[in-house]
Amino acid sequence: MGRRIIRRRVVRVTLDGIRTIREEKMAVEEPLEIRFNGTSFTTSMRTPGDDFDMVAGFLLAEGIISRAEHLVSMRYCAGTDEDGNQTFNVIDVQVGLGAQPPDLSAARNVVTSSACGICGTNSIDEVTKNSSYPLDPTRGIVDIKVLLGLPAALRQEQLLFSATGGVHAAGLFSTSGELLLLREDVGRHNAVDKVVGAALREHKLPLHDTVLQVSGRASFELVQKAAMAGIPVLSAVSAPSSLAVELAQETELTLAAFSRGSTVNIYTHADRVSSGS
Amino acid sequence: MGRRIIRRRVVRVTLDGIRTIREEKMAVEEPLEIRFNGTSFTTSMRTPGDDFDMVAGFLLAEGIISRAEHLVSMRYCAGTDEDGNQTFNVIDVQVGLGAQPPDLSAARNVVTSSACGICGTNSIDEVTKNSSYPLDPTRGIVDIKVLLGLPAALRQEQLLFSATGGVHAAGLFSTSGELLLLREDVGRHNAVDKVVGAALREHKLPLHDTVLQVSGRASFELVQKAAMAGIPVLSAVSAPSSLAVELAQETELTLAAFSRGSTVNIYTHADRVSSGS
Repeated sequence: MGRRIIRRRVVRVTLDGIRTIREEKMAVEEPLEIRFNGTSFTTSMRTPGDDFDMVAGFLLAEGIISRAEHLVSMRYCAGTDEDGNQTFNVIDVQVGLGAQPPDLSAARNVVTSSACGICGTNSIDEVTKNSSYPLDPTRGIVDIKVLLGLPAALRQEQLLFSATGGVHAAGLFSTSGELLLLREDVGRHNAVDKVVGAALREHKLPLHDTVLQVSGRASFELVQKAAMAGIPVLSAVSAPSSLAVELAQETELTLAAFSRGSTVNIYTHADRVSSGS
Repeated sequence: MGRRIIRRRVVRVTLDGIRTIREEKMAVEEPLEIRFNGTSFTTSMRTPGDDFDMVAGFLLAEGIISRAEHLVSMRYCAGTDEDGNQTFNVIDVQVGLGAQPPDLSAARNVVTSSACGICGTNSIDEVTKNSSYPLDPTRGIVDIKVLLGLPAALRQEQLLFSATGGVHAAGLFSTSGELLLLREDVGRHNAVDKVVGAALREHKLPLHDTVLQVSGRASFELVQKAAMAGIPVLSAVSAPSSLAVELAQETELTLAAFSRGSTVNIYTHADRVSSGS
């Protein structure tokens, strides 16, 4: 359980055709199934470890829970693989009063209504409607020097990446640049779910005075996950998508991207980024 | 419809706090919902364009169809957004004889059975069981010089990436290095679905004498998508995950990763990579 790195022999081949056998470390990827009272809800690939945090973060992003008290229980099902080992790849969840559990009997039977089209606006409305922690424009002010230093600070702590080169990272920082939580995973979204879920389970939500730094791009889902946790600033090393920017605009989240050491692009709500302090 | 790039004003901030307003291009991200006879099946974020190809490729990877004849029809639902414009974000699919349509009434009601645990082995069994195009170890032999040249050949044609910096690419090459198909998308999986789906719709499956080069990492799903299309070689610029390697091993697919110009790691079935020809 929780094994995050495995070793495997690989053949390295050069342009000249020279072959050498090497042993390489690689990031483990395994499916995780989430069930509600025994009924399957979703399965996704992830790097094992911090699974309860990941589930909590995922349920928060989906609008199903918004605080630790909504979670009655999470447990690994007692399943085994063909060798008789517990797989630790299925988690059964029970939620309580205040939660909005998904209607699993009807979830896939949403028959065509008159509103046949979906668009980015619908997706954005879903997030703004469901968030328990609306963002406050006066919170989460971060100095430009702090903001520009976060990718390097994150990179320094990416132990799994250093070993395998194959994982994304999400780091939650205070607005003064202190690293509060870091998680790595083969899936970008999972790393964020693990960070946010850990904070939720420690009763730390909303995260109004923090910045979330991610190692890759800024997609719609990452903005959604930050906004649902009350994180006011999301900073990405690479590019944002159009819908990520639109959602950040609507939720009053500051979206920074292409953060490259000496410059960064601020796509929305640039007032939170201060300079000269 | 099909708008892949939008322009947006951003604030660029330097370490000294100097702010400049710039106009930047970014990749469009919009949801695409797939329905079967009006019933919702799945929704995912993608860059608009080649949507029918993406749906065809996705259905192939899921084991629902394996040839063009299985698709009776695909059409955009006549939905509109709040401004009255068609969104082109919902596609209704009808499949015919020979297809394995998902049981949408039961899909989310898989109640806990005695086999409670899932593991990588189950996921791998699903793919090997469902593939219509088992890989032939004697097909898809590629010279090391050709293989090492594919990332640069792909990069040269990534027009959307050049404009926005925010998208992944998948390129299908012949074993002699000729580019057959290239697609770019905010989602890595979508780019592969679009390539494979285009080939399926042109009756080109199985793709036994091709190499699929991708811009990012090699995850389980990418190996799955290649294997289901009969593609014998998957080459990635970055790292593979453990489950990607296991699936490649089982399906007899050659998995190359960390392809960096002068060296590449071959994780499985290295016999397909020839040298000195």
